[in-house]
Amino acid sequence: MREGILVINAGSSSIKFSLYISNGDEKPLLSCKGQVEGINVAPHFIAKSPHGGVLNEQRWPDQPNMSHEALFKYMIEWIEAQLGDAELKAAGHRVVHGGSQYSQPLLVNDELMEELEKLIPLAPLHQPHNLAPIRALTKVHPGLTQVACFDTAFHRSNPWTAQSFALPRKITGEGVKRYGFHGLSYEFIARQMRQLSPAAARGKVVVCHLGSGASMCAIDGGKSVASTMGFTAVDGLPMGTRTGTMDAGVILYLLQQKGMTPKEIEDLLYKQSGLLGVSGVSNDMRILLESSEPHAAEAVELFVYRISRELGSLAAAMGGLDALVFTAGIGERSPQIRERVCAHAEWLGVEMDQEANQRDSLLISAADSPVSVWVIPTDEEMMIAKHTRELLRSLRD
Amino acid sequence: MREGILVINAGSSSIKFSLYISNGDEKPLLSCKGQVEGINVAPHFIAKSPHGGVLNEQRWPDQPNMSHEALFKYMIEWIEAQLGDAELKAAGHRVVHGGSQYSQPLLVNDELMEELEKLIPLAPLHQPHNLAPIRALTKVHPGLTQVACFDTAFHRSNPWTAQSFALPRKITGEGVKRYGFHGLSYEFIARQMRQLSPAAARGKVVVCHLGSGASMCAIDGGKSVASTMGFTAVDGLPMGTRTGTMDAGVILYLLQQKGMTPKEIEDLLYKQSGLLGVSGVSNDMRILLESSEPHAAEAVELFVYRISRELGSLAAAMGGLDALVFTAGIGERSPQIRERVCAHAEWLGVEMDQEANQRDSLLISAADSPVSVWVIPTDEEMMIAKHTRELLRSLRD
Repeated sequence: MREGILVINAGSSSIKFSLYISNGDEKPLLSCKGQVEGINVAPHFIAKSPHGGVLNEQRWPDQPNMSHEALFKYMIEWIEAQLGDAELKAAGHRVVHGGSQYSQPLLVNDELMEELEKLIPLAPLHQPHNLAPIRALTKVHPGLTQVACFDTAFHRSNPWTAQSFALPRKITGEGVKRYGFHGLSYEFIARQMRQLSPAAARGKVVVCHLGSGASMCAIDGGKSVASTMGFTAVDGLPMGTRTGTMDAGVILYLLQQKGMTPKEIEDLLYKQSGLLGVSGVSNDMRILLESSEPHAAEAVELFVYRISRELGSLAAAMGGLDALVFTAGIGERSPQIRERVCAHAEWLGVEMDQEANQRDSLLISAADSPVSVWVIPTDEEMMIAKHTRELLRSLRD
Repeated sequence: MREGILVINAGSSSIKFSLYISNGDEKPLLSCKGQVEGINVAPHFIAKSPHGGVLNEQRWPDQPNMSHEALFKYMIEWIEAQLGDAELKAAGHRVVHGGSQYSQPLLVNDELMEELEKLIPLAPLHQPHNLAPIRALTKVHPGLTQVACFDTAFHRSNPWTAQSFALPRKITGEGVKRYGFHGLSYEFIARQMRQLSPAAARGKVVVCHLGSGASMCAIDGGKSVASTMGFTAVDGLPMGTRTGTMDAGVILYLLQQKGMTPKEIEDLLYKQSGLLGVSGVSNDMRILLESSEPHAAEAVELFVYRISRELGSLAAAMGGLDALVFTAGIGERSPQIRERVCAHAEWLGVEMDQEANQRDSLLISAADSPVSVWVIPTDEEMMIAKHTRELLRSLRD
């Protein structure tokens, strides 16, 4: 029998879904995907085939304030109509925060939901939206197997030193730690590496997940040992609109000398900074690379510089570097950024094959480069689908 | 004629001085040094010979609130009585902040003082105390040559990428940048390196200034290109009581979720964290290394780990590493910390000579180590004395 696995990734203003169909032991195949976006403003549902053809589109101009729940219900009904002879077997959810305790995906039950709610103060802007569709789906499909996949889980293998701030133990004990994020992406890449190059996958790998959210991860022998995002996803690399690493003294200065409120500072750090703040032009790397504005070029230069510094720091976390991987929007599609990062990384033994890089080839390092360099498309939804299927199977065994 | 040069390093609760006597072209020689400490609590003046013998000691038990100015006057009068046949020619002051504009020591005049006062919001806890003795000395000795030596100046050679946060340009333009500190120490070490090993001094050097304040600096061809302290001296390495690098999201969490005030957060980050916070035992590395408390060992481990990560990041800023230098209290006197940092740095080509390290030798790397490793005592006061004498001479020429 064909099995349907639904993957949900829900945020404050959008709910994304991907429907996978699998046939026994085969790899799950994407059947369709889509999203509701503009929630609370101008809700808009769109669903597409795996190749991008629009399958359905819907707007509710008379109901801009249509509830999250009603929109989710519309989405689920549409998805169920697509199943055909397949049966919806399980749903996998991206949950941003699994705290210190969860190092792998877990079957959803009341107990787990209670624990995940306790983590809301650690991710107040995301965790509630990740949990809402789990509850909504439980109502519609009381018996459906649901799996929570955490963006923090992959990093729980980090040594405690990489997870700790030098804060008093009491505060660390309350959960003020470096969790790291983008874990589902890194885990997907680590599995791909195992297939593409088992030797490299056993070694010291730095993965650069460069999208509008950007981070880097040191993966030693398949396990995350350090990453650039910390307690929150504002830490580490500069991003589309986020600052990345910031001296805490700056925050005190903005509070004490400039009289800014915490909310204003939050907006500044998350929404007005990064590529957008430095360039004054855009948060979109493609626009910056095409721009003739000097400030746009500077934003790109700062982005590359900070990646280079973090690369040294992450190599130090492993005591060396065997492979470098680029992924996510910028990582997968910008030969120029990859070239510039690799030029800064020559001292680590990175030698690029310029032509392979221009072609977005899988392997873009020179044949005799001591460090191999890869471009590997990431797929967080596929990782969630795989986890969900693996948990389903373990239940049957 | 013998010339006296007075060096002043003033803080909120103490004023330190060093008196140097120089005879024409010779290197200035330390004549005596001392401090007033416990200002506003229990003022205590002590002066010592270069070898540590107490020359004078004074307390004012009846006047705990004796003014900064009156104490400074007592100090100056005592110092003048020590000059003998030498003439007080100039005073050099450590001034923590020289902003973006000052990349070298400067002769004090009214214009400069005005500019330095404008920088007070950037270092409200230190800058006013650095400026007060300059004004006091101008009153007592209206004609005396005074020189301001900035702790930030040495880092002004950093590329703009190392000096910038990914913040909107307006805020960067207002001075929210990475200034770096401990500049007088790094400049002293850079000069020492030129004499000790001209070849290494022309190369890529990382200096670890490890005291109760701790930072690291990448010096390429004698010029600072990056350092771990940022807008403030709370950034970078964990220190005696300071956190070092902190996710800005933690500060927002403490404000928004825990209801802490900015002042409480400042105390937390500056006074309750670092080695003290993690160990729960002490901010003193010597005590931690001797302690049998597991938390004390963990504080040391975190300190070493963070140094190792920053070493990778700073090597990346230069594209390699030729020499590693340890200085300041812990750096000069803890073979154990040096050994552990060097063990983490083997991947960079660091090979230690264990025996030389145990002896606190000048050169502690193995003969065939690709990276040379040094222990060089720092002397910020001597650096200020040299700068002051150099400016004096340039006035005469």
